[in-house]
This record gives sequence, structure tokens and C-alpha cells, in this order.
Amino acid sequence: MRTQVGIVGAGPAGLLLSHLLHLAGIESVVIEARSRAYVEERIRAGVLEDWVARLLVDAGVGDRLRREGLVHHGIELKFEGRGHRIDFADLTGKSVTVYGQHEVVRDLIKARLAAGGRIVFEASDAAVHDLDTDRPRITYTAGGVSDELVCDVIAGCDGFHGICRPAIPGGVIRLYDRVYPFAWLGILAKAPPATEELIYANHPNGFALLSMRSPEVSRLYLQCAPDEDLALWPDERIWEELHRRLAGGEGWRLNEGPLIQRGVTAMRSFVAEPMRYGRLFLAGDSAHIVPPTGAKGMNLAVADVAVLARALEAFYGGRGGDALDAYSDTCLRRIWKVQRFSWWMTQMLHRFDDASPFDERRQIAELDYVTGSRAAATTLAENYVGLPLE
Amino acid sequence: MRTQVGIVGAGPAGLLLSHLLHLAGIESVVIEARSRAYVEERIRAGVLEDWVARLLVDAGVGDRLRREGLVHHGIELKFEGRGHRIDFADLTGKSVTVYGQHEVVRDLIKARLAAGGRIVFEASDAAVHDLDTDRPRITYTAGGVSDELVCDVIAGCDGFHGICRPAIPGGVIRLYDRVYPFAWLGILAKAPPATEELIYANHPNGFALLSMRSPEVSRLYLQCAPDEDLALWPDERIWEELHRRLAGGEGWRLNEGPLIQRGVTAMRSFVAEPMRYGRLFLAGDSAHIVPPTGAKGMNLAVADVAVLARALEAFYGGRGGDALDAYSDTCLRRIWKVQRFSWWMTQMLHRFDDASPFDERRQIAELDYVTGSRAAATTLAENYVGLPLE
Repeated sequence: MRTQVGIVGAGPAGLLLSHLLHLAGIESVVIEARSRAYVEERIRAGVLEDWVARLLVDAGVGDRLRREGLVHHGIELKFEGRGHRIDFADLTGKSVTVYGQHEVVRDLIKARLAAGGRIVFEASDAAVHDLDTDRPRITYTAGGVSDELVCDVIAGCDGFHGICRPAIPGGVIRLYDRVYPFAWLGILAKAPPATEELIYANHPNGFALLSMRSPEVSRLYLQCAPDEDLALWPDERIWEELHRRLAGGEGWRLNEGPLIQRGVTAMRSFVAEPMRYGRLFLAGDSAHIVPPTGAKGMNLAVADVAVLARALEAFYGGRGGDALDAYSDTCLRRIWKVQRFSWWMTQMLHRFDDASPFDERRQIAELDYVTGSRAAATTLAENYVGLPLE
Repeated sequence: MRTQVGIVGAGPAGLLLSHLLHLAGIESVVIEARSRAYVEERIRAGVLEDWVARLLVDAGVGDRLRREGLVHHGIELKFEGRGHRIDFADLTGKSVTVYGQHEVVRDLIKARLAAGGRIVFEASDAAVHDLDTDRPRITYTAGGVSDELVCDVIAGCDGFHGICRPAIPGGVIRLYDRVYPFAWLGILAKAPPATEELIYANHPNGFALLSMRSPEVSRLYLQCAPDEDLALWPDERIWEELHRRLAGGEGWRLNEGPLIQRGVTAMRSFVAEPMRYGRLFLAGDSAHIVPPTGAKGMNLAVADVAVLARALEAFYGGRGGDALDAYSDTCLRRIWKVQRFSWWMTQMLHRFDDASPFDERRQIAELDYVTGSRAAATTLAENYVGLPLE
């Protein structure tokens, strides 16, 4: 099989890239290890930056997003038992949209298939070859048959544990890594969210987050140990701790409901530099991971593929490879700013076991400053709604 | 001897308090361990926040400050060999004034003595007593004679190593402390400053700061080890390292000149809470220390005594002790914000030996963000020129 751009991974990065290339008249094939049902049901991030929501709408895949997405104009920071709103609309004129990553995936798969796009699901043993030539190849097995996809360019959109990044020869990329000494215990509960906006809480027992998937389903998180044993967390203990950490404020109360899902999310910061080797371009989680505190993972993946699609359009449009050559640097400048923001939110809101009493007071002073200074609140807001795409 | 307010320490805090009380018709006596010449020549901080310069002028001790102080409308942040200006005037409408702390001390001593104020220099063996009564006492020896000062209130303005804080019974105050794993090697040089504004440089070899005392005298700093041996730093090595760390930018070059002074400044963050015990009120360095990166030490001391003078005015004006009771909380809210700022500037600009490559890139990303976002630049500027006094 022959295509222009071979894409490994049918997550939001790979699928959106395929869709954007299609709009630009560039052919691609997506190779995915999992089944369609698996990727469509995989629960991940759920907050879209302002420009990301607009990009999806402009690209013709935003109808359901516009109908079902929850537009939020702010968040609440809670510390020392009091809530403080960060008003995105007032501070930046922008908003975010709460809409699950798997919903974006569903919309994109539907759009690709409707347009005759090719997605190979359940492709096993995928491998990439000849990356330093102008005819790189992807080999894989699908339906028991070995196959080969010969491309001009390969996009590695296959996540942190994917096969693309490890295929780059040693010494080419440098890895930057930071693992946090805590994780998130997350639940989905069939309970109407008790507030309309997200609440980020700093509590002596640890961080907590009230989020939502829909007007009927709450998404809630508790800071926990990286190796937390879920068996020690019966439903009552989870609710008790959520009530405790999210307490405070004017006459609202957390709504309880049956748990649909529970899990532990690890927290790490990770960057691979550069994001290119020969004709292989890394995008999304294959090149970088952020801790979820700033809700940035999917947004950063979308930024990567927006830059990559533009560069490939220039390449195929006869405008040369300069934009492709600049791809890694262009993306990394944003990525490091977003890494900074995600680290900053994380260190401000979590409890660190090795924090000195000075550090703990400094943390509260930071929250006091962020919620009391318009300039500081704006730094949070402008990052949360999304820095402009360069 | 009898007075209303006994003040221990003739630094800027104690002297300004005495002066402000005098303006309000309240009597005080200042007890100082050192000689007048010593305190007038002791080189310390040299950047006055916007409102501090105005307060000194409004209090009638700003004539020389207005003539000789250098008004600065911005600073430069330098990293990766490029300078980026933070424009205070544009971002906040305010400025800072470069004017040595010892010059402030000179002006205040002159004003106090001209007004008949009493300052006991070279008072040895000072001790405070009966703090939990309404007649606290200061005992000391001056000119070989033991003496006693009976007061209504004592202000402990005697610095980090003073006698007031340790006189508070154990268990009353809590100490918050952070010692940084580096220090500043500082020099005064008879060389015209090469730029009109301060330059704060982040360099792989460590932090450097270009400051000035006057149009003829440069003040320069290099990050060094806390136990740095000055014998290993002949003049040539100091200049070589300053040139290296401050390099970059448009056609300017560091001016060299004979070294007038050199020394090592330790870096710590420290807060004592509460700042009051009975009739003893701590102000300035006796209650808190900030690392010098944000140029906040003297400004914070001035904020303390401005609050204390106002509270004593209410107390003596028959408006009760509520403001005195609120003194510690009022000061501490500002102090923690300033601690946060000083910590933030310090961690952003210095090299930490235990920093991972991720931390180092995150630090550069922070500088990139601060110099690229108006909101972020404003957070730096509004803290540097001074948060409003509450």
C-alpha cells in the first residue's frame, strides 16, 4: 500500500492530522493497534482550549461539540476552605469547552470514514523503517495478514508507550523527565455536578478536583500515592474524602451517585527533543506528557498536528521543507511553556510530603496572590484557555 | 528614663518608626548597639519601592533621595544571551528608586537629631523585660553606665541577630525557614554602570546581577557557594566571570574599575509568626528575611513600621488597641506575598546543583513566558515596584 502520510495511532492527534490533511487534499492512512470500540471508549482528558474548540468547528467536526460541549467561562480555586473564581471571560475574553477526548475521537473517526479515509484498527506488530530515506515504511499485521505502507512522511501519534519514538536511533533525541511523588485517584459518578464550573482545591490532605463529563455525570479526583491500592478506597471513603477536601463556600454540597469508573492516573512531565528524525515526525503524547492539572494533554497534541498539517501543506504545495524543518522548534517553544504552566499548577495545588512549613505557607501565599492580583489571575486564565498558536 | 515607644535598633526600620511617631506626636527613644558611623556606612539593599520613596518624601526625609536617587522605570532579564526589558512604567505606571539603605539611615538620623530625637548609639548588653506587662523595659549600658528605659511599647527593630526575638518565651512564635544552597559574591567597583538599569542574568554558570550605587559606582553580584572562599576570587577572576554571565545584547560592555568592597551575602527565607508578644512588636529583619533577588528586604521593613506607626497613632489617639492587635496579621499577609515573590525570582534566576535537565528547561520556559506575556511581565513589575500597602 502507498500513501503520502502514514500516521501511527488513532488518538486525537493522529485522527485530527488525518482529517486536516484530507481538507488540504493530502492523502493519509492511520494505523491503530486497538479496536475502534476501544479508542472510542477510552476515557481521557476533557477540556478543550478556546482555539481548539474553534479549530474543530472550523474543520467541520464540531457539530456535536457545539451541541453537547459545556462552555465554561471560569474555574474556582479553593484553599483554606474558601473559593475564589478565576473569570476567564473577564480576564481574557475566552472560554474553554468541557467535552471528552473520546467524544472528539468518535467525531473524527466518523468524519474520516464518511470521507472515505482509511483507518486500520487492530493492527499488531507495527514497526517503522527507513526513516532517514524519502520512502519510509510502516509494517504491521491486520486480520492475520502482514502488510506494508510506503509513505513520504510518517507521523508518530502513538502515545507515550508507542513504537515510533523508540524507533529513533540512540543519541538522536534527548529526554526530559520529571515524575511526581503522587497520583490522582479519579472516579466517574452518575451524579449531577454540584457546581457549573471546575473546582481545583488545595487541602492539607491533598489536592482534589471537581469536574464533569455532562450535566448528569461528575468526574472527581483525589491526590493519592503513586502506588495507591484501590482496594483501600471503598466508595464511602472516596466520598468522605471528596467532601472533606472540597468543603467550603456558599451553601453548595457535593452530589453523590453510583460510581461508573475508578482508576489511578500517574503524574509525570516528559519531553523528547527534537520531535523529528528524518521523515518521522512525533506529535502528541509520543513526544511529551504533562501532569493533568492544567488540562493540557490533548490541547498540546492538537497544537502539534495543527503545526504539522500546515508544514505538510507547504511541503506538498511546492513551498519546500522549511516549515517541516522548523516543526520541532515551533512546537517545542509552546510545549515548554505548557510544561511550565502544568508544573506550576501542580506544585501550587498539591501537597508534597517533603515540603517544609515554609514551602506550605509559600504555596498558600501563591494562591492568595493569584486570586488577589488581576495580572496573576490573568496568567492562569490565559494559559488555561490556551496560548495563541504561533 | 521613660518614653512612650522604646525602639531597639537604628536601622531603617527603627529610625523610620521613630520619625513617623515623632510626626504623630509620639515620643520614642532608639537604642543601638553600634556606633553612628557604623550604621551610616553599613552597605545593604539599595532599591526603594515606588510607595516607599513617596513615603520618605512625604515624611520630609526625601530631599536628598529626590536629588541623588536614580529613578528606574524597568529592569532587564537576560537569559540564553539575550536581554528582555520589563517596562515598569508601561506595565504599572510606577518606578523604583536606587538609593542605598545607608543613605536612608543617614537622612533619618539627621532628621531625628535635628528634631531633638534621642538615639543611644553604642549601647551594649541591651535586654528587654516585662514584655507581658504594660510597662515593658529596655536595659542597656552606654558610656560605661547601666541605664533603663521604661516604655509603653517596645519595637524590636534589631535585625535577624538581634536580642528582641529571642526574648520571646519558647512556644510563642513559630519560625519558617529556608536556606538556599548558594550565596552572592558582591562587589562595589569604582566604574560607571555600563547600563542605566539593573540586569538580572540567568547563566549556566549561575546568576549575575548588574546594579549601581551612583553614576560612578557599580554594584555587581555573582552567584557562588554559601562557603565561597574569597581568596579564590582575585579581581581578574571576578571580572572574567561577570563578563561571561552578563554577556549578550546590543553593543554594550561591562565597565571595569577598582574594587572598593567585596563580600559574600547568604541567601535565606525566614518568617517569625506572630510578630508580637505582649507589648513587644517585631518589625523588619527581626521578624523576616528575604533572599535579596527581589530587592525587598528594606521595603518590607518600611511596610512593617508604616503599619506599626499607624496602629500606635490609633492607640495613643484614644482609638483603642484593635490596630495593634491586627498588626501581626496585617503585616504577615504582605510578608508572605513578598516571600513568594522573592522565592520566585530566586528559583527562576539561579542555578541549582540538584536541578534536573527538565527543571533547567522549565526555568528557561518561565523566563521566556515572563518576558513574552504582558500579564506575566506585569506580575513581576507590580511586585518589584511594590504591592499597595493594605
